[in-house]
Amino acid sequence: MTELINAVEAVDVRFPTSLELDGSDAMNPEPDYSAAYVTIRTSEGAAGHGLAFTVGRGNDVEVAAVRALAPLVTGLSVDEVLGDLGAFSRRLTGDSQLRWLGPEKGAIHMAAAAIVNAMWDLYGRRQNKPVWQLLSELTPEQLVDLVDFRYLEDALTRDEALDILRRAEPGRAERTDHLLRHGYPAYTTTPGWLGYDDEKLVRLSVQAVADGFTQIKLKVGVDPADDRRRLRLAREALGPDIRIAVDANQAWGVRQAIDWMTTLAPYDPYWIEEPTSPDDILGHAAIRRALSPMKVATGEHTHNQVMFKQLLQANAIDILQLDASRTAGVTENVAILLLAAKFGVPVCPHAGGVGLCEMVQHLAMFDYVAVSGTTENRVIEYVDHLHEHFTDPVRVRDGHYLAPTAPGISAELHPASIAAHRFPDGPIWNRQATA
Amino acid sequence: MTELINAVEAVDVRFPTSLELDGSDAMNPEPDYSAAYVTIRTSEGAAGHGLAFTVGRGNDVEVAAVRALAPLVTGLSVDEVLGDLGAFSRRLTGDSQLRWLGPEKGAIHMAAAAIVNAMWDLYGRRQNKPVWQLLSELTPEQLVDLVDFRYLEDALTRDEALDILRRAEPGRAERTDHLLRHGYPAYTTTPGWLGYDDEKLVRLSVQAVADGFTQIKLKVGVDPADDRRRLRLAREALGPDIRIAVDANQAWGVRQAIDWMTTLAPYDPYWIEEPTSPDDILGHAAIRRALSPMKVATGEHTHNQVMFKQLLQANAIDILQLDASRTAGVTENVAILLLAAKFGVPVCPHAGGVGLCEMVQHLAMFDYVAVSGTTENRVIEYVDHLHEHFTDPVRVRDGHYLAPTAPGISAELHPASIAAHRFPDGPIWNRQATA
Repeated sequence: MTELINAVEAVDVRFPTSLELDGSDAMNPEPDYSAAYVTIRTSEGAAGHGLAFTVGRGNDVEVAAVRALAPLVTGLSVDEVLGDLGAFSRRLTGDSQLRWLGPEKGAIHMAAAAIVNAMWDLYGRRQNKPVWQLLSELTPEQLVDLVDFRYLEDALTRDEALDILRRAEPGRAERTDHLLRHGYPAYTTTPGWLGYDDEKLVRLSVQAVADGFTQIKLKVGVDPADDRRRLRLAREALGPDIRIAVDANQAWGVRQAIDWMTTLAPYDPYWIEEPTSPDDILGHAAIRRALSPMKVATGEHTHNQVMFKQLLQANAIDILQLDASRTAGVTENVAILLLAAKFGVPVCPHAGGVGLCEMVQHLAMFDYVAVSGTTENRVIEYVDHLHEHFTDPVRVRDGHYLAPTAPGISAELHPASIAAHRFPDGPIWNRQATA
Repeated sequence: MTELINAVEAVDVRFPTSLELDGSDAMNPEPDYSAAYVTIRTSEGAAGHGLAFTVGRGNDVEVAAVRALAPLVTGLSVDEVLGDLGAFSRRLTGDSQLRWLGPEKGAIHMAAAAIVNAMWDLYGRRQNKPVWQLLSELTPEQLVDLVDFRYLEDALTRDEALDILRRAEPGRAERTDHLLRHGYPAYTTTPGWLGYDDEKLVRLSVQAVADGFTQIKLKVGVDPADDRRRLRLAREALGPDIRIAVDANQAWGVRQAIDWMTTLAPYDPYWIEEPTSPDDILGHAAIRRALSPMKVATGEHTHNQVMFKQLLQANAIDILQLDASRTAGVTENVAILLLAAKFGVPVCPHAGGVGLCEMVQHLAMFDYVAVSGTTENRVIEYVDHLHEHFTDPVRVRDGHYLAPTAPGISAELHPASIAAHRFPDGPIWNRQATA
């Protein structure tokens, strides 16, 4: 009997993070971190888990988008899908009717990400390997077959991608060993939410360095005087050697970004993240030219590989911040890692939210082992929220993510967490409603 | 009593256009033209109608997106909303949780368009004016107040926008009179769907010119030999003076677009539309440089004003094809028309689908009367599908759209059409299911 995909289940799961102002920034004052949580089930009883992260309202739309894609998936042969995950991804993103809702952007693309990641999770479980290792053991040809080069070839050809992967092949075993022993460098956003007062900011910043982090990040963009004071306090507390990145979460226009960051420059911010609209490639390029040598970072809202291609072509970014569920999951992120390697731009994945730390660690570790071959100037974002809800939570020690060893992509939620946080009928939300 | 918005209703309406291959192109082989149809109702019994166009599957996701936005709208004072439609639009596109699904792109942004347009429809009905006329009678200051300049100021300042509008003010009355007497030039896509055979292509092309059109458009991008033959047949049938645009609907990579169009150049295509990914600003610029003086057109999938800004900044397009329900409706389109005027690029709106002709005519006519002040090299797309379902259908005579005179934005569907085509329970779809 051929093993078939029997079901693509989607659940609306929300965490009431707005109550503590965790996650508060210039554009997201009160997020309720949420997930359109996807489970793919097969006729043999196997399962894979993935999710699309949102910040509350609209998570139901995301669930609807997953359900709209589900009929393209159910009934497929598991072996055929796993044998050509590039084609599987194109099937989801290229459906001639559903792509009108994007194309390759917004709710429908994030839904594709959740399904694609669930399929990679299932693949990892089947191979008994964490996804970073599974990817790192594929041949250059297998990896390049995942990539849809149609819109990329003016920046990255198949042959160039193969060259990048082949150059990194000899060191794979050594780097895997290093990774398993030392982990992958992290930075932390935990101290810097806008909703935290000065005392909490300083205390958490000092704690972060004591915990082994050599980079932290602060949110900025609402009040310039506040930003100067907060950055000064952090700089005074941490000294000159700790990198302090700042993140405006799209709050500014192009000129405003340049002016605002110029006033923060005396406190040596390492990068400015999302200074303006995530769609503004030319705007990011102008900001980078004006602020250099301060670095410009973006990517968590960069909606597909064509946008990343242009950010690189336009010399608009110093740091590429890919996301696990904004673009179409592991498969599109392989292309994005190859683009970054071609242009020599370090990838520092966006994380936090629900399960993003869990998922992006696999991508960064694969990049180290098999693509860029280095962790120099590369760090994975770390936020210490909501990990307790995952069956294989990230482990961060001394400022490093330890390499996951459990099979899959680490996105599985505990059944009890799902039941408690299911929206709107789970007990967490019933309590909110009646409080 | 203050008049309040009582309800935002959304209905899933689909037309089985795939049965006739109407609308078939390189990326949309079998569309079922659909609408997330929105009605806003007030406490005084007034109503406004708008819609977001989709091509079938996924229209339910679009309806879900409208319903997610509805709580931001219900309960608002109608007078306050109509008094600051710029703020109303930012309320819909800037919700701190819902914007995560975009931001300002995809299903959630199209849902905003449907609601914004419904509100403009209500405004027009209240003023007893078609929306083109309502817009054309606003002062430059009122129009500029609609625009969110945050991400635009590096390309268009408020003062520059005011200058553009003030320069056009003296001729408004004369151009309104001209418009009412002569209409606005159109071109037709009716002959060119990929699913039509050569005989039908030639017959409909000749008929289009007999009907007064001086420009037609053919779909291309699946087979180069077919494209050469079809374009040659049309050129031979129509002679050298009729403009023949071609539309690849995103089928190609950048180099492929240049190569493919070079082989069609002998048949003098007037513009190449959507040669590659709609997100590829730099790609469009490269294609334009390579193919000049052939023109490059895009816009129906350009998801917001920041993307249009960059297409203009990068000299990537000769023709800007705004859409009524891809960007956030009339309000964002005022900004896009101002951007186009600043850069001197003609606007030729995308239309067809469901109700797009009905809605975009208002934008093009407003542009003529109060923004660019000219129809030179400007044409509105025309497709002769589905107009019979609208209470105020477009009227096209001798290759021109006649100016609508009924109040509103012309997006109201007949109740009988809604009832028949409601998905999945309307009788049209019940018949399909049981056929």
